[in-house]
Amino acid sequence: MPTIECYPCRKLISVAPGTELLAALRQAGIEVDASCGGKGTCGKCIVRITKGEVNSSSLGTLPGTAVADGYVLACRTLVMQTDLTVEVPEAAPRQGGKFSDTDETHLVRSELLPKDADYDPLAVKWLLIVPPPQLESGLSDLDRLTRALQRDWGKLRVTYPLQVLRAVAGAVRSHLGLVTVTLVKESDHIHVIRLEPGDTTTRHFGLAVDVGTTTVAVQLIDLTCAQILATRTDYNGQISCGLDVISRINYARRPERLEELRTRILETINRLLKQAAAGLDVDPGEICNAVISGNTTMTHLLLGLNPEQIRLHPYTPTVLQPPYLDAGDIGLAIHPDSWVCLSPCVGSYVGGDITAGILCTDLATATEELSLFVDIGTNGELVIGNKDFLVTTACSAGPAFEGAGIECGMRAAVGAIEKIDVDPATGCARFATIGNVPPKGICGSGMIDLLANLYTTGWLDAGGKFDRSRPSPAIEVSGRRARYIIAPTGTTEGCSSTDKPISISELDLENIIRAKAAIYSACALLLHQLNLDFADLANVYIAGGFGRFLDLEKAITIGLLPDIPREKFHYIGNSSLLGSFMVAVSQRFRQRQLELAARMTCVELSTDPAYMDEYTAALFLPHTDPTRFPSIRQTIIRPPLPAEKGEVPA
Amino acid sequence: MPTIECYPCRKLISVAPGTELLAALRQAGIEVDASCGGKGTCGKCIVRITKGEVNSSSLGTLPGTAVADGYVLACRTLVMQTDLTVEVPEAAPRQGGKFSDTDETHLVRSELLPKDADYDPLAVKWLLIVPPPQLESGLSDLDRLTRALQRDWGKLRVTYPLQVLRAVAGAVRSHLGLVTVTLVKESDHIHVIRLEPGDTTTRHFGLAVDVGTTTVAVQLIDLTCAQILATRTDYNGQISCGLDVISRINYARRPERLEELRTRILETINRLLKQAAAGLDVDPGEICNAVISGNTTMTHLLLGLNPEQIRLHPYTPTVLQPPYLDAGDIGLAIHPDSWVCLSPCVGSYVGGDITAGILCTDLATATEELSLFVDIGTNGELVIGNKDFLVTTACSAGPAFEGAGIECGMRAAVGAIEKIDVDPATGCARFATIGNVPPKGICGSGMIDLLANLYTTGWLDAGGKFDRSRPSPAIEVSGRRARYIIAPTGTTEGCSSTDKPISISELDLENIIRAKAAIYSACALLLHQLNLDFADLANVYIAGGFGRFLDLEKAITIGLLPDIPREKFHYIGNSSLLGSFMVAVSQRFRQRQLELAARMTCVELSTDPAYMDEYTAALFLPHTDPTRFPSIRQTIIRPPLPAEKGEVPA
Repeated sequence: MPTIECYPCRKLISVAPGTELLAALRQAGIEVDASCGGKGTCGKCIVRITKGEVNSSSLGTLPGTAVADGYVLACRTLVMQTDLTVEVPEAAPRQGGKFSDTDETHLVRSELLPKDADYDPLAVKWLLIVPPPQLESGLSDLDRLTRALQRDWGKLRVTYPLQVLRAVAGAVRSHLGLVTVTLVKESDHIHVIRLEPGDTTTRHFGLAVDVGTTTVAVQLIDLTCAQILATRTDYNGQISCGLDVISRINYARRPERLEELRTRILETINRLLKQAAAGLDVDPGEICNAVISGNTTMTHLLLGLNPEQIRLHPYTPTVLQPPYLDAGDIGLAIHPDSWVCLSPCVGSYVGGDITAGILCTDLATATEELSLFVDIGTNGELVIGNKDFLVTTACSAGPAFEGAGIECGMRAAVGAIEKIDVDPATGCARFATIGNVPPKGICGSGMIDLLANLYTTGWLDAGGKFDRSRPSPAIEVSGRRARYIIAPTGTTEGCSSTDKPISISELDLENIIRAKAAIYSACALLLHQLNLDFADLANVYIAGGFGRFLDLEKAITIGLLPDIPREKFHYIGNSSLLGSFMVAVSQRFRQRQLELAARMTCVELSTDPAYMDEYTAALFLPHTDPTRFPSIRQTIIRPPLPAEKGEVPA
Repeated sequence: MPTIECYPCRKLISVAPGTELLAALRQAGIEVDASCGGKGTCGKCIVRITKGEVNSSSLGTLPGTAVADGYVLACRTLVMQTDLTVEVPEAAPRQGGKFSDTDETHLVRSELLPKDADYDPLAVKWLLIVPPPQLESGLSDLDRLTRALQRDWGKLRVTYPLQVLRAVAGAVRSHLGLVTVTLVKESDHIHVIRLEPGDTTTRHFGLAVDVGTTTVAVQLIDLTCAQILATRTDYNGQISCGLDVISRINYARRPERLEELRTRILETINRLLKQAAAGLDVDPGEICNAVISGNTTMTHLLLGLNPEQIRLHPYTPTVLQPPYLDAGDIGLAIHPDSWVCLSPCVGSYVGGDITAGILCTDLATATEELSLFVDIGTNGELVIGNKDFLVTTACSAGPAFEGAGIECGMRAAVGAIEKIDVDPATGCARFATIGNVPPKGICGSGMIDLLANLYTTGWLDAGGKFDRSRPSPAIEVSGRRARYIIAPTGTTEGCSSTDKPISISELDLENIIRAKAAIYSACALLLHQLNLDFADLANVYIAGGFGRFLDLEKAITIGLLPDIPREKFHYIGNSSLLGSFMVAVSQRFRQRQLELAARMTCVELSTDPAYMDEYTAALFLPHTDPTRFPSIRQTIIRPPLPAEKGEVPA
């Protein structure tokens, strides 16, 4: 069967020849707008075939130049025998684009993923036959349902929400008394969540949610087989209220603003889950369990808890391990009586995203080998440990790697420059963008690429200053300031303002170097406090939406990551989302997560007198102490001296 | 101290001389409108002093005739040394008035009431000190609260609703960490309902509710001392959708009408509870537990459960014993996280009002003496038993005793004729109304009084027909029809239509006789099925709002109640409300109620072949078998014959 590679979502689909392209994309959970219902008239399902052949009609509705560029209407296009590469425009462009929505379970070592034996979701669907009502028995509908449940589950107390009471009479009187009960079993009682007439056990859905400060990811799970059905990612709707947790906490000072932040994050999650469900013909009300992981501040804001104590001494949050809460109480738009499980936080700055994330690493196993887990984001979080200990800390990297605070920065979305080569001789850039579209800005991985290549080619010195001694068309010097032009005017889709080139200034470079220094020095200092060294680490796990596009070698080159054998590094993608998925399909993983959280010790690095020294020493490329990065070499191609030029005979 | 007797609520208050009358009335929980705030200007707090002396000012704002009739403004009136009798007009006249709001605990034998040792409400207020946050401990606010609770209550799991999470940070940081927790303890965990800063243990409120088909009663309870603070009674807002349960069930066939019925009863309860709370400066949100008792149909409608199966063979309700439900889910306007306890029903026609009611009788004790419990209402319910057995049944009496289906009938409210004497010689009536106001109609107790007196004086025969053989100004004969004039035109406040006299027709009498026959024959038949006789009964408990005004002797005279020694009868008033109060203050009584419900056996009388015979035999005054009512005698005063008249010399 021909395969279709989709961009920017990077999904791979296999479909039979003759399949309608729109149907194929939707089947794969890719959102394509087609408001005319697939009649070829609204033109909203336009996609671009960049490789392969298709059978397409209704091309007359498109401009000739678009047709020449490979654009077709997905609803009027049939897949043929050849493999395809298809560019699917963002359905609803927001703040520069949309993250990729891939299933990243392949990034996690398969031994760490839940096995069939672990499969044991909190919410269970159970098929029952409720005997018909009888005058003599004197049993109500609920009595008979309870007895049927107790026959299978033992003589436990059974509790019911009001909505189930309202459904009982109808359910037990249809399908010859065959009903499907969604329930949660607790130590001493069974809590019924939902009651449906007939056998609906094949439709059982759960939700995993990663609530990041910047990005929110939602994953729809088929709980009957522990499969990820769809993933949707978007910016956290709170971004307009502040870029980092501290500014959000400050924003939340007034009660109505706390409520605004709560509503904004809920709106983001609910929109994403509806999108994820819609593509699969799942009603959000069929989702009967959710696992949500977020940092401590995000967890507080989602629940409408005032987060102010998180930033005030002694930094005591309201809650670290929230109890199970009803989806309806929280405002999550799944079945309102669903239990929502929030990943446990460890401290004010090490949250549920980390306790979910380390489930994807050897830190969750019984090994003696030392592992380091690094979640690179606006806040960086680290965990070091093995079966004997787990130590964690957080550092503030700033939002540079996520594109904020950088003049032409943007998030890793369609149009972002994610890869840049630098010509050693001329200093000029050659770049690639996500989605192969004209560039809109530069994302974190592009910045790292650029810094590393400028440094190794000698166009940037260890202090982050451009080489002013030789001319390059890419370096514009203006007084004491210099900037590097990546994409000149006319080649871009507009940076922060129109008609400007996409460039990086020395000021931008300072911000990037500060970010990488914060991460590296935190790792180094934490190891030092534990009398350990980078060399002692058997594994380094790198997490974060950022990690997906990161070029490991380049990250080491700039000194973001330590110069140790490359095979020790593992990208694990959005481990907060992955860990949430694991918890959603397995109570054993929930238990493991709680145990890990209980074992973790938070340390505060900023109180260590060595903190400033370590940080300052890291404010160089790759480091003030080059022996720490033995494999990094700078190659400076010296241009011919003017004097030598003069010696050439005229 | 002078005492004040209040009408129509029949409350007795003792206050110091010099007390403002408005304050005295309100203190006793009597609702008096005073929208000017007691300035003597709005005139709404007008009351009538029918006995005793007061010191009253601002009389100039009242009409002279009103002042002559004894009306004063309660806010401008001081109690003096003498006892008073005060008529308090209904605050908001609705459908003819308002029931009395008295505390009826005195109607129940004191041995049956909860004792201090029984005092153990479901929701408990608990005072705690939560230690301050510490950087080193790593404990969240919730962690410290949980530990403080576990120190006092043992290492149980503690669960919290979202609202408590939102309150924790603020509460533990004020009053030096002193907080008051409202909680419910279950076998394996503690469920927190509410968290307040500081010590609020002196303010702990519960609610008892009787949801009758016709009348709703709400009682505010001080849970710190198991005292009734206020009682409010009003018509069930569902009345306009049907007078009895069957017509309500029919009305509820369409989902939007089921929702309408649910909303109507909630509106009634919520309005009454707000009124009860307002007079005492209690916020309804301070009420953290409620016990609600209603018949099976009312219980279903309150919860929004489709009641249709209650009237369809095999008469299987959705639920007999509802689980604890959150007030917020139900829509009860108390603290939304409060647990609401609904009294268990026994069958489709024997509901929670009965299992609450028998708590007020010897049926709830370990005695071998036989007791009969009769709840007289639109549906009559009976329970017979002792410590060894409990048998229950229901019969349809029809709404006659509640004033419905009777031309000039009305409920027992202000203006209702509740007592009628009949002049043996002339057949004319002398009557008294509730509240001593001009008559508006006749209520059930008035009907019984009238029937009994017409029968014993010979103006009515055993078949319910008026004596047409001698003239009476009170009996109007028109062809085959006859009616009895109680209050002629001009003396009334208007019956069903204005300018009509208040009267009872022979058709009305038929309805009343059918109602009494249904109750009596059900009692007789149930005893017969058990091989028992009325003589075997040690106690007969009569319950229902109706019972308060019932003249026992008259009820026996018409054959509603059996002719057995009078001391065996006990009026217990609104035992459904009283039983709810008992359950609200004592989990032991809740347990007792559940045990009683489990022990009760429902029997269906209408399937007994003797049913129609027994019923038909009871359609006479007092009964076709006069040996059953040996103490009832008719006294017919024969008028002089016309011939005798003629013999008198001219």
